[in-house]
Formats: sequence, structure tokens, C-alpha cells
Amino acid sequence: MKITPYCRGVYYHETDRMDVVNHSNYIHWMEEARVDFMLKMGLPYEKMEEEGVMLPVLEINCNYKSSFRFGEHIAVITKIVEYNGFKLKLSYDIYNEKTKKLCAYGTSSHCFTDCQIKPIRIIKKHPNMHELFKNAMDIEYDFLDSREF
Amino acid sequence: MKITPYCRGVYYHETDRMDVVNHSNYIHWMEEARVDFMLKMGLPYEKMEEEGVMLPVLEINCNYKSSFRFGEHIAVITKIVEYNGFKLKLSYDIYNEKTKKLCAYGTSSHCFTDCQIKPIRIIKKHPNMHELFKNAMDIEYDFLDSREF
Amino acid sequence: MKITPYCRGVYYHETDRMDVVNHSNYIHWMEEARVDFMLKMGLPYEKMEEEGVMLPVLEINCNYKSSFRFGEHIAVITKIVEYNGFKLKLSYDIYNEKTKKLCAYGTSSHCFTDCQIKPIRIIKKHPNMHELFKNAMDIEYDFLDSREF
Amino acid sequence: MKITPYCRGVYYHETDRMDVVNHSNYIHWMEEARVDFMLKMGLPYEKMEEEGVMLPVLEINCNYKSSFRFGEHIAVITKIVEYNGFKLKLSYDIYNEKTKKLCAYGTSSHCFTDCQIKPIRIIKKHPNMHELFKNAMDIEYDFLDSREF
Repeated sequence: MKITPYCRGVYYHETDRMDVVNHSNYIHWMEEARVDFMLKMGLPYEKMEEEGVMLPVLEINCNYKSSFRFGEHIAVITKIVEYNGFKLKLSYDIYNEKTKKLCAYGTSSHCFTDCQIKPIRIIKKHPNMHELFKNAMDIEYDFLDSREF
Repeated sequence: MKITPYCRGVYYHETDRMDVVNHSNYIHWMEEARVDFMLKMGLPYEKMEEEGVMLPVLEINCNYKSSFRFGEHIAVITKIVEYNGFKLKLSYDIYNEKTKKLCAYGTSSHCFTDCQIKPIRIIKKHPNMHELFKNAMDIEYDFLDSREF
Repeated sequence: MKITPYCRGVYYHETDRMDVVNHSNYIHWMEEARVDFMLKMGLPYEKMEEEGVMLPVLEINCNYKSSFRFGEHIAVITKIVEYNGFKLKLSYDIYNEKTKKLCAYGTSSHCFTDCQIKPIRIIKKHPNMHELFKNAMDIEYDFLDSREF
Repeated sequence: MKITPYCRGVYYHETDRMDVVNHSNYIHWMEEARVDFMLKMGLPYEKMEEEGVMLPVLEINCNYKSSFRFGEHIAVITKIVEYNGFKLKLSYDIYNEKTKKLCAYGTSSHCFTDCQIKPIRIIKKHPNMHELFKNAMDIEYDFLDSREF
């Protein structure tokens, strides 16, 4: 399965007085890219939550290599790096969409929980979701293959 | 009853590339000042919601006279300008805490609703809250009286 | 000249504990829609700033009719309601992209300034920008014409 | 030298539809705590920037143990874990101010740069700042000593 990166322009309100995007907004981008990735892998985030499954963040990290300015566009390549039906770890490579330069990269770790934020194993309770996450581990990106990124 | 303004420093992440606070954050300040005002008038916002009363925003407006920079502090004077047990309108005067200069002012209009966001009259269902809002219309500010603002 | 509305999905981080988008984010949307509108009218915001012209917000207001939930999409129709080479006022109609329901509407008022935030008249100093803003007063929307909105 | 933690209430606009604070806001808290720490160690962030020194973020990470709800208060204990006049690494322990429970912890790594975001060694160019950072490595917290945290 091949998908496209999550792309959008930088918002004015995301910059700070250093004239570049404030580092906290990269965490927003990772959340947005995660939601976009799950839509593309066939499990819209809101559907997952409607079925009573939450995906809280256990750990997050981000490395900043070069900054983004207003007027530039991001392209985020999201991948599953770990998944065992209980925990999920995603990686995010954040590129400048135009220059194809890797500007930041990070990861987020999650567990699956019910509505009361109690951890659950989705293998048993939600085999359909389990199947989707397993398949999503093989997702590739069109842009990567065409060496654009 | 006399209370003090809502005061806090400007956060770095609130500035934008114009080197001043992005205008959207003033709406955050108004929400924070509203929560602070309700705490001081005797009705903590979270208690109101626990009792099943929501206070969604119907309309908001803000006038910007001078900007805030990182390193400066805000002082917000919140007042009830309309209250009839059904709707609530608050005004916010946003001062530079140090210079006592009025830098922005705005209003927010609200209705009271239940958890399903269905409008309710709190006079009947929550007479204790009604009493608190009625009394809060007479709230004065210490700082104003001492001509500091 | 015909353009399309500014459209995007609601982000998870834009919701609050009422399970709908926090009202402050509509101000972000208006800023994003303004930037998008200026790009489409031929004056990218960052180019304007590069030429030394700033467009600070003097006043903002927003009316909230129905709320947005995560999973929904916004479509913003931005129009110039006042322009005289000195001040600029824009209106924003915020629709649910799918249902075509008008969920909120607002305005923002601006003046043109130099880099030191000193008001300027762009008619004299930047006649090319003046022309673009004048022409943009006649912009129409494709979606409106097709009665989708 | 003994200082107090960075404390403040959770804002309504910081919550998301899971009814807890969105994870991205912890990164804001770390920035705010960093600014507060530098004020208490004798180097107000805005003064540092006025002298032409920037402190961009190179890497950030955060571990989430328990969530924060609206109505609760945070208390952040910031410490220097690495400093060599060239790079700076801070740790942040985020407590629930009332229960004294450790709810999250993280780190941020920085380099010192000039206004053009070019790395600099502050030992040579800003010996006074260097001295302040060196001394700040020994900072202790009142609350910790009194076993409140």
C-alpha cells in the first residue's frame, strides 16, 4: 500500500518572535500527521474513538535540525516502528515540502485504552483494528519511492 | 465585594513573528480571566460543570489598542455587563500590569446549557448559581479604587 | 475573479473538554483564511511583509451558531467588506464543508503599517498592493454560485 | 540557592475531547518553566535575547504518566542536567501541585546562538551569562527539601 505524506502550509500563528515556528507546534504536526496516517490506513481516528478505543500518548520526542518559516510547507512521513496489539510507536520525518530537506524527526509511543483510559489489548476486543494496524506496518510512500524525499 | 485582576506574564509561545503577542491569544486570556473571575465570585468553573451546567460562547469581540511583548505582564479586569439568568455577557479590560495602560478590551456573550448543550434557565434549576451571578454584578476591583488602573 | 473557500479538517488538539472545537481556534481559522485569501487574490502574505508592510489586527469579532467536532471539516468564505487604502475589514463565513451549514461568522479590522508598526497609506507607497486589494473586492466564490453554500 | 517550582492552573483551552490536557501543552509548560527558571537564576530570558543570545531547542522529549484535568494545578521542577558553555540540557518534573504526584517528566536540549541562529560559545562572549548558568547547576528547591514533592 502506498500513501502520500501529510502536507500543509505553516500558519502565521505558529511562528514566534524568533521569526520561525515555535518548537511546540511540531508536536501538533505529529498529532495531525498521525490522524492523517490512520485515515489513509483505513481507520479514521474518530471511528476508532466511536468504537470506544482511545490512543493516549505515553512518550514523545522530537529532534529539530532546521527551522520552518511562515510561507513554507511541511510534508510529514509517518511510519509504524512498533506495534504488538498493545502498544504502538510511530515515527515522523518532517520535511520542507519544497526543498525536500529533512528538518525534524520524532516519535510518539501510545497504548490502546477504553473510554476510562484503562489499557486494553485490541487483538482480542477489536480484531478488525488489529488487522489494519498490522497491514499499516507495510505502508510505503509514493514520494519516497520517487526519490523526491 | 472586592477582587483583584487576573494577572500573568506573557509566554514566549504566545508571540509571533511580528515580535508581539499574536492576537488570537487575547481570546485565551479572556477565557482564563473568566475562569478566574468565577473562582473569585465563588463559583469555580469546574464545579459549575460538575453540576451539569455549561457556558458556551455565543459571541466574542476584542479591540486591540497596543501590543504586548514577551517579558510584559497582563492584568485583566473582568466584569458582568449583562445577566438575566439565561444569558451572560462579560467585559474584559486588558491592561499592561506595570504601566497600567489599557492595551485591549473585549466582551464575550454566553448562554447557560445542560451537558447536551441545550439552553437552560439557571434561575429555576440552579438558584444558588443564580444568586452568585447576581451578586457578582456588584464586584469591584481593589486596583481600580486605588487608581492604579 | 472566482476563488474557492479555505478548507481544512478540524484538528484533535483544537477540541476541548466540551468535545467541540474551543472557541479561540476560530480566530486562528480566520487568520488562516485571511492568508489563504490574500494568496488567491495575488498578494502572498509573506511577500507583503517582505516589502515592509504589516497588517496588524485592530478589532476582531466572531459569532458562534453551531459547534464543530473532531472529524468535521471547515470551509471559510472570506470577503473584503471595507477597503480604503488605509484600513481593511474582512468578513468570514465559516461553514461545515459537508453539510454546507453556516456555523459561525466574524470580521477582522486591520490597518496597514510599516515594520515599526507605524500606520501607512498603501495607495501612495505601494500602488501595486492597492490595486490588488481594490480588485479583490469583486472576488466571488465558485461554491457559492453553485449554491453549494 | 533555593527556588520554588513553576506553578499555575490548567487552562480550559488546554484540555481536549479526552477531557484531559492535550499532550502538546506539556511542551508549552516546559518552555514556561524554562523561562521561569532563568528568571529565578538571575537571567531573565528577555534580557538574554536583548544581549543577542538565542536559545533554540535542539531536542525535546516528554513522558506522560498521568493526565491533568481542568481545575488542577501543575508544579514544574526544572533543573540543569548538562551545561558546558556551548550546549544546555534541562530536565522538567511536572507534578500535580496538590497531590504532589509526579505526572510527567521530560528534557529539552539547546544550543546558544546569535541573532542569526549561528551557534556561539557564551563562555567567551558572555562570561556573565556563563557564570549564571554554572551557578544555576546547584539550584535546589524548597518544596523538595520539605518533602512536599
